[in-house]
Amino acid sequence: MTYCLGIITKYGLIMAADSRTNAGVDYISTYQKLFNLSLPGERVILICTSGNLSVTQGMLLMVQKDLRVPEDSNIHTLPTFYDIARYLGGKIRQIQEQDRSYLKQDGIECKCTVLLGGQIKGQPPELYMIYSQGNCIHASPQTPFMQIGETKYGKPILDRILSFDTPLDIAAKSALLSIDSTMKSNISVGPPIHLVMYEKDSFKIEYELKLDARSPYLLKIRRQWENSLKEAFDRVPDLEWNQTNQKIEIENFPDP
Amino acid sequence: MTYCLGIITKYGLIMAADSRTNAGVDYISTYQKLFNLSLPGERVILICTSGNLSVTQGMLLMVQKDLRVPEDSNIHTLPTFYDIARYLGGKIRQIQEQDRSYLKQDGIECKCTVLLGGQIKGQPPELYMIYSQGNCIHASPQTPFMQIGETKYGKPILDRILSFDTPLDIAAKSALLSIDSTMKSNISVGPPIHLVMYEKDSFKIEYELKLDARSPYLLKIRRQWENSLKEAFDRVPDLEWNQTNQKIEIENFPDP
Repeated sequence: MTYCLGIITKYGLIMAADSRTNAGVDYISTYQKLFNLSLPGERVILICTSGNLSVTQGMLLMVQKDLRVPEDSNIHTLPTFYDIARYLGGKIRQIQEQDRSYLKQDGIECKCTVLLGGQIKGQPPELYMIYSQGNCIHASPQTPFMQIGETKYGKPILDRILSFDTPLDIAAKSALLSIDSTMKSNISVGPPIHLVMYEKDSFKIEYELKLDARSPYLLKIRRQWENSLKEAFDRVPDLEWNQTNQKIEIENFPDP
Repeated sequence: MTYCLGIITKYGLIMAADSRTNAGVDYISTYQKLFNLSLPGERVILICTSGNLSVTQGMLLMVQKDLRVPEDSNIHTLPTFYDIARYLGGKIRQIQEQDRSYLKQDGIECKCTVLLGGQIKGQPPELYMIYSQGNCIHASPQTPFMQIGETKYGKPILDRILSFDTPLDIAAKSALLSIDSTMKSNISVGPPIHLVMYEKDSFKIEYELKLDARSPYLLKIRRQWENSLKEAFDRVPDLEWNQTNQKIEIENFPDP
């Protein structure tokens, strides 16, 4: 499994990913899932991948290959983020067409989902999700984050903290805690955690973190969050079983 | 969708459920999912249901019907909770056998999952999960809670708060916040919330709550939890992008 997320606010972007890959529970390994394919000073391009690793690696290799052919359309020359998203979707479709029938014979899925975030000079920052079928959607001020992989455990904290007006450092902290919560509840999501913060209009990646399981910083943040959560929990008033007028009998099931 | 959970600690049991049912997103209604089928003074039997409503209602009607035939094996006469769990599993199988081929014709699932909690006089409290296939597992001190339906959003808080030694009122509060978190992230889980707290060896249900969406008590708890969570979040130190030695370059993808 995987957990990646992208956050877009009016101040820029956060992209984050775990690094655990598994083929069954008995083959667990570590792969990078967050990639920086920027052209510094001109365009920032960050990609997070989830799903079938052979498909997403194949897509990234084809992207790299096209970058070496200057006259070709590639992620450094395509005019908009929508074009780049469609281009990545096209690569996914190509690999899947090559492999689908062979994988299907053994009941293996060739699905994947990709997040694409960044900014092209003269345009605003953008965040896209590219589906396994090659189509795509973009994030909006109303929905300022996108998640792929094991998305549910880490969503409540994002729902409570994030808006399009959230400062970038707050968004980055929520991303880290969202991934940490997911790691706690699902062992198929695991460290190291990659995190990138991109400041709008800077056209370079200045803020990056890679935190492994023994990182003192990750351990500190986690301990602090656990303690604070427990304190928050303690401050919620106890259930008022007797004082409340809400107490009603739960009916027995009606007689048949 | 549905979210129900059962918690067992050394002090007793908590059973809780939402009440939203949907057939697609355009047909949403409210059904009770937590049922009290106790024989006061002798045995406490609480059942939560998720999945295909026609299957779970059918199961409960058959259970009620058997209770009206005194010489028959029924949930008030079966000797152990394991027997009751297997009995419920058998009812599920019966209904599914009647309906499966007809539902399958139209691509409709006849799956369901059931939680069974309570206590028989002379035995300890027990908590079982009965799978759609009719088999079952029971909770243990190492895994003191069981969830059915939309389980993921509400699991992180349980992972952090619950153990077999947790006092019942704390367990009840964690159950309520777990359901509330789930309702916030998934609209297919909704009020009213039913909550029952059973004190070990009391053999009667003394503590019940039914909280609808406008319940002042639920609104108060929710507001307090949101505020406390935000304060907890604020207390977590900001990311140390520069001070940390963990900062490393995220490699570009290797050249093909």
